[in-house]
Amino acid sequence: MSDQNLKSRLYEIIFEADTPAGKLFDVSLFVAILISVCLTMLQSVGSIRAAHGGLLFAVNGGFTLLFTIEYGLRLYCAPKPLRYARSFFGVVDLLAVLPFYIGLFIPGTRFLDVVKVLRMLRIFRVLKMAQYVGEADLLKNALIASRRKIGIFLVAVMTIVVIIGSLMYVIEGDANGFSSIPRAVYWAIVTLTTVGYGDIAPSTPIGQALAAVIMIIGYSIIAVPTGIITAELGLSTAQERNARKCDACGHHQHDADAVHCKRCGAALS
Amino acid sequence: MSDQNLKSRLYEIIFEADTPAGKLFDVSLFVAILISVCLTMLQSVGSIRAAHGGLLFAVNGGFTLLFTIEYGLRLYCAPKPLRYARSFFGVVDLLAVLPFYIGLFIPGTRFLDVVKVLRMLRIFRVLKMAQYVGEADLLKNALIASRRKIGIFLVAVMTIVVIIGSLMYVIEGDANGFSSIPRAVYWAIVTLTTVGYGDIAPSTPIGQALAAVIMIIGYSIIAVPTGIITAELGLSTAQERNARKCDACGHHQHDADAVHCKRCGAALS
Amino acid sequence: MSDQNLKSRLYEIIFEADTPAGKLFDVSLFVAILISVCLTMLQSVGSIRAAHGGLLFAVNGGFTLLFTIEYGLRLYCAPKPLRYARSFFGVVDLLAVLPFYIGLFIPGTRFLDVVKVLRMLRIFRVLKMAQYVGEADLLKNALIASRRKIGIFLVAVMTIVVIIGSLMYVIEGDANGFSSIPRAVYWAIVTLTTVGYGDIAPSTPIGQALAAVIMIIGYSIIAVPTGIITAELGLSTAQERNARKCDACGHHQHDADAVHCKRCGAALS
Amino acid sequence: MSDQNLKSRLYEIIFEADTPAGKLFDVSLFVAILISVCLTMLQSVGSIRAAHGGLLFAVNGGFTLLFTIEYGLRLYCAPKPLRYARSFFGVVDLLAVLPFYIGLFIPGTRFLDVVKVLRMLRIFRVLKMAQYVGEADLLKNALIASRRKIGIFLVAVMTIVVIIGSLMYVIEGDANGFSSIPRAVYWAIVTLTTVGYGDIAPSTPIGQALAAVIMIIGYSIIAVPTGIITAELGLSTAQERNARKCDACGHHQHDADAVHCKRCGAALS
Repeated sequence: MSDQNLKSRLYEIIFEADTPAGKLFDVSLFVAILISVCLTMLQSVGSIRAAHGGLLFAVNGGFTLLFTIEYGLRLYCAPKPLRYARSFFGVVDLLAVLPFYIGLFIPGTRFLDVVKVLRMLRIFRVLKMAQYVGEADLLKNALIASRRKIGIFLVAVMTIVVIIGSLMYVIEGDANGFSSIPRAVYWAIVTLTTVGYGDIAPSTPIGQALAAVIMIIGYSIIAVPTGIITAELGLSTAQERNARKCDACGHHQHDADAVHCKRCGAALS
Repeated sequence: MSDQNLKSRLYEIIFEADTPAGKLFDVSLFVAILISVCLTMLQSVGSIRAAHGGLLFAVNGGFTLLFTIEYGLRLYCAPKPLRYARSFFGVVDLLAVLPFYIGLFIPGTRFLDVVKVLRMLRIFRVLKMAQYVGEADLLKNALIASRRKIGIFLVAVMTIVVIIGSLMYVIEGDANGFSSIPRAVYWAIVTLTTVGYGDIAPSTPIGQALAAVIMIIGYSIIAVPTGIITAELGLSTAQERNARKCDACGHHQHDADAVHCKRCGAALS
Repeated sequence: MSDQNLKSRLYEIIFEADTPAGKLFDVSLFVAILISVCLTMLQSVGSIRAAHGGLLFAVNGGFTLLFTIEYGLRLYCAPKPLRYARSFFGVVDLLAVLPFYIGLFIPGTRFLDVVKVLRMLRIFRVLKMAQYVGEADLLKNALIASRRKIGIFLVAVMTIVVIIGSLMYVIEGDANGFSSIPRAVYWAIVTLTTVGYGDIAPSTPIGQALAAVIMIIGYSIIAVPTGIITAELGLSTAQERNARKCDACGHHQHDADAVHCKRCGAALS
Repeated sequence: MSDQNLKSRLYEIIFEADTPAGKLFDVSLFVAILISVCLTMLQSVGSIRAAHGGLLFAVNGGFTLLFTIEYGLRLYCAPKPLRYARSFFGVVDLLAVLPFYIGLFIPGTRFLDVVKVLRMLRIFRVLKMAQYVGEADLLKNALIASRRKIGIFLVAVMTIVVIIGSLMYVIEGDANGFSSIPRAVYWAIVTLTTVGYGDIAPSTPIGQALAAVIMIIGYSIIAVPTGIITAELGLSTAQERNARKCDACGHHQHDADAVHCKRCGAALS
């Protein structure tokens, strides 16, 4: 097998998912990522690290070696290696392996924590695989189509949160935990989104009344993003169905399973 | 009455709900399950167990006897007893009675707690009865039809939660309660789903800023499952209404304004 | 004016809202109820009661006298006084005034608290007035039409909550606040509905994992009631528009403002 | 350039966004407002004020000078200066600069806090700019069209919250933190909107049962505003798409499948 043949064969396996070998590679990679992400999570638990730290470090090193080989192969077989290296997933793949090798030479637990988190970035690859499922497109398109409306909604939310946060800073003041406007705005976000930790909570009657107002605002306007996404999803589902036209009478909006025009009875193409 | 007749008569009463006797049996079983579940819940309350422990034990024993007889009858009259015994509800029915008898011989309060919980499984039977109501099918079908979209949504949620949890672990660190990545991911789930216990909460400014981001993400993307389910339910409700049938080819699901069958072209009545 | 005339005139004013006098009466009653409800709320605040208790008591007594007269007039002018007295609003009207008079003779602050709360029932009258607005019917009908689906949803929620609550009782146990099954079920409701007080929170890793599951379930299935209500509201809004039919070609689904049939051009009736 | 020309030129730049200069002015103002709002937020943080208080004061003073000039120019070039001065944004512009000058003469940190919050009002201008995006109209119209339904929903929510709050006041009482009806109603709002701070939480079994009821009510009826907004947004998105116009009578909003104008019956192009 010539070098060019090897490259294109590898490209098929590693970058595509149409062939059986490509699918097998993707599933194996998927499983390897999930295991290595779980191991990294376990590694961060003090008691587990104390008991099985050496084992975890060894297994994680093995996985990192595997992902390094994968990164090398991707660079090797990509038609334009630089373009891959600078793409989002190219950077993610590099960031997920590089820090491990740097960590071998530079000591310091704090730095190792950051390494661990960079390793977690591999999980983005899982998200990429979800794209193979057809429904992912529908959802992505609905989100893209409604991005401007969602953007305006978020600007309105930000304005409400800054105004009410500032008011609460004046009303409640330092004594009740609203020690600065950023902290009061943080409280307003916690309340408007109905998260409600309770680490900061109003204690004056006026503050509680204003808090009740922002709660009811938050409870009501959650309807806005929901309405936006629902309208988009409803339209795209309907469009998918109605995209056929009758040649005889020109009537459109036929279901995907229709063979004859529902108005004139002519056969549909 | 011959043995076979008795069997098929019992089958009608116990497994079906079309005859008056079958309905009466189902309603009685429903009431018995609700009472025994409530008794089991009361039994777990320390003060009530101290005061009325003997009584509750006796009544619960009576109910267990009743459910044991029911299980025996189901085994007796089912055409294929083994198939029933290995079905989901067959296993639930057995698990709900068996531990009581084992508990009589094996002492230990901890074990008895597990027994109680197994007994709670009976409540699944209540869910089965809900299926008799026609609307349950509509809801079940909408959930089944949207299971892949919901699945992709959950994968995306998991990715967000793992990435943000890992970041918070580095930013906040052990001192502020984010002692490991799994714990930080747990916090991210508590926050994204807007539950917000407040047992772990960010205390550094950067951590609070990132927390605000995940809150607003959680507040906005709740629109996605809602949009998916709403679009499905809207379609199935509309389809239900449009269930016209073609006399020529038997095709159903024609729109309310259709004049010709969309499959064979025959005029619709 | 004859006695019968007076009765029917009073009935028009008190029970109906079509005449100017009837509207004026309703608006006055509305304002009086809001003021008396606010006063009752203020009366329950310790510091305000200490400072202005006598004044509040006097004003509230005046309002109660007013509502007593109103109740008497309703009894007098209703065509069937007993039917009114036994209706939901007849009972509310009586319960809202009666305890005040009983309270004058029976001392004890605890009892007075209950009296205050009964007085709050007057606020139901406000809800009754909201019915005059046409949109209230649309909402009420959508809720009534979807009551069975919502019922099945609540049964499913109850089953999930009981099963997960029971599991948490076994997993977390008494030491972590899950002291009984009812308490664990209460925690499960607090978590599933995304309220999340944080007074009871899981502390074992398995408990937190199960809690994460119920949170994501709660975050996802909130889509179900939303989808049900949205589908109903969408249909009723559409039906309102599409209830007109063309006499010439039989085409329906014309907008409310259409003068001609959109298919054949004939004038619509 | 004559005085009138200068005025109309300035008006174009400051009040409109159609010319390149007008757009540049709007974007600059937008950036200046965001920076000054962020600075004001930082100024309220104790540690930052201690370290860089003088610098922040100076920079903020510079921005206030800038906004004062802007306010003066708006007054100068507006065709009806008084009408601008009394408009919502005229008042906001004045309130955002005036207190700074008053603060120079009147000492007292408490007063300065209020000044800071008034300065935050500038953020409303950001909201005004969002209106230039076409989608903002769609959202605004959907909210306006559903304001009566949302109003009725809020009246129903208020009634539920007052009734359940009052009941909890009697059930839980002073000892468990439900010290007055307003406080109990505040708790009911915190719970119904699923915020759930946990600063007040029921501790008696009956109180917890009632709390579970209000949680499930809150979890279910969030579907109502969502359904209302979704139905409105769905209709307005569909209408936007169907905006065909009749050449004969000028009527628009014909469905995609209309052949004749629904108002005058003329054939549509």
